[in-house]
Amino acid sequence: MFDISPVSHEFDEEIQHKIDNKTKPLGALGELENLAMQLARVLGKDKPEIIKPKLLIFAADHGIAASGVSIAPSDVTTQMVMNFIKGGAAINVFCRQVGFELEVIDCGILQPLEGVEGIIEQRLGAGTKPIHQQAAMTLGAVKQGFEMARNRIEYHHQQGTNLIALGEMGIGNTSSAAAIMASIMNIKGSECVGRGTGIDAATLKRKQLLVEQALHLHQPELTSPMNILACLGGFEIVQMTGAMLAAAERKMLVVVDGFIATAAAMVAVQINENVRDYMIFGHQSDERGHCLMMEYLQARPLLTLSMRLGEGTGAALALPIIQAAAGFYNEMASFSDAGIEI
Amino acid sequence: MFDISPVSHEFDEEIQHKIDNKTKPLGALGELENLAMQLARVLGKDKPEIIKPKLLIFAADHGIAASGVSIAPSDVTTQMVMNFIKGGAAINVFCRQVGFELEVIDCGILQPLEGVEGIIEQRLGAGTKPIHQQAAMTLGAVKQGFEMARNRIEYHHQQGTNLIALGEMGIGNTSSAAAIMASIMNIKGSECVGRGTGIDAATLKRKQLLVEQALHLHQPELTSPMNILACLGGFEIVQMTGAMLAAAERKMLVVVDGFIATAAAMVAVQINENVRDYMIFGHQSDERGHCLMMEYLQARPLLTLSMRLGEGTGAALALPIIQAAAGFYNEMASFSDAGIEI
Repeated sequence: MFDISPVSHEFDEEIQHKIDNKTKPLGALGELENLAMQLARVLGKDKPEIIKPKLLIFAADHGIAASGVSIAPSDVTTQMVMNFIKGGAAINVFCRQVGFELEVIDCGILQPLEGVEGIIEQRLGAGTKPIHQQAAMTLGAVKQGFEMARNRIEYHHQQGTNLIALGEMGIGNTSSAAAIMASIMNIKGSECVGRGTGIDAATLKRKQLLVEQALHLHQPELTSPMNILACLGGFEIVQMTGAMLAAAERKMLVVVDGFIATAAAMVAVQINENVRDYMIFGHQSDERGHCLMMEYLQARPLLTLSMRLGEGTGAALALPIIQAAAGFYNEMASFSDAGIEI
Repeated sequence: MFDISPVSHEFDEEIQHKIDNKTKPLGALGELENLAMQLARVLGKDKPEIIKPKLLIFAADHGIAASGVSIAPSDVTTQMVMNFIKGGAAINVFCRQVGFELEVIDCGILQPLEGVEGIIEQRLGAGTKPIHQQAAMTLGAVKQGFEMARNRIEYHHQQGTNLIALGEMGIGNTSSAAAIMASIMNIKGSECVGRGTGIDAATLKRKQLLVEQALHLHQPELTSPMNILACLGGFEIVQMTGAMLAAAERKMLVVVDGFIATAAAMVAVQINENVRDYMIFGHQSDERGHCLMMEYLQARPLLTLSMRLGEGTGAALALPIIQAAAGFYNEMASFSDAGIEI
């Protein structure tokens, strides 16, 4: 379905040699050195550079939100989408600052925002069905979502972009992400459910019950990544999964950040494990469960700032670190350049 | 000696209210919210902004380096200073990228670099004396170093700079920093000594012995922060200490990063504890002992990237995070701005 090449390790030794000959003690740039290796593998060993980085926010509504699993009603999804369009959200501030171009994609919020400029319409419906009562969507919707995402990634690829970061907005989507995580890791839903936007103990209990109920209801169907998305997913999660796979197919870097995007990343890895080579993890979320996800994906996020906002905020703040890794690899003097003998 | 006001907490409630009314769940920006509070306290609650950030590299040589405590000879200090001047070091790359103006200060490398443009000369001598055999410098040199640092900070303050980051270069300076740390925390020198540039087990053993020897030799004199600097310090450590105190005196933010700069920060806090209010910690170093220093200073560094390079590299990479904290505080919409009701 997605034709993704694993990264080549042909030049690893040459890349490592270049890193080791920079004017610094061996290994002294820590995680940046691992990152430089990944950048050189994905973007080429001679001069890996981040070109036209884009941050895509995928927004959608969730049927389960009507059952009170969040502090906010579904209306807030649309209100926040308008906030993104007007430039007032955290992710707008961070993208402006670090140089990410931001794009907002309506994957299926409750009401389409007609006549509002700047929204990319890739609607799969008006919110998903409540996953504790029925499948979120049809398999056909999942496939359609993948195609839409692939087309959008192809558009950015054509523009020269070689790094895509993914953010999301969708009241109720931590429930969906928790259910997906539980299904893939084969652990209890209650272990995956966290406080999302900041719910109280009673709401947390209800959210855990509903996620368990969803998992129980769909258990016989949860036999493939596509089915997991259809039963438990969200329109934004489906399109994020497709976008990650499509980006890796085009040898673009994929910055994954936050609990919901990481659930999509887990599904993407289930579909084609080669996608993992292209992923960079932006931030260790404070949402319960994210730590387990990172272990599952053998990922070490670049930042740990105790954030739990989503929107791709951790991915945005990670961009300067990624650019620093490319920067030292491309621009730093070697010992012989600098005439230093150790 | 330094007249530092503690930050005012008069507007804490108002600042917190502003943070809490941004379009995000309560507390969802984690450490950035704590940082925004600090920025608002130091730079003013209405629109705290980072102006003309400067990163100062303090370079000096150390007598103890002649006893083989590093993988590199003292000559490398001068060679790396030339690398900074030519723009080829990691810190040059990172400063260019994040928008730090970089300044290199010769606090006392072995030979002055005459006729090289771009070096600020604030020499206290041609390297310190070996601390395991005698005092590193006189008390007069410490005072002179403080005055030189204060003058330089005053220069940057006059230019409008309100944030100073500190980096350093000096073969042998982790030995000096470890001795200072041990003295202030009243723990064994061997617990504070790490591998620095990457020494082997035998060299580590020798370094531990020499640091213990220095502590034992000067024990009767280590009765004040100034004496600790005179006995165990380095010319760059003295000037960093003075620069931190002088910056706080002028209500400038101070970004501390790395094992050696943090040793200077510990001395600065001993001299005037109010300086702590102005400090931001850039990066959790991989150098052994830095973790203990952070506990002692009750600090939580912004980044944890397993680096151990010094030069202020962690401070440089932290700047975008600091600017993001100011950015969300200044630019993000409130719930009422965005017409969102929760």
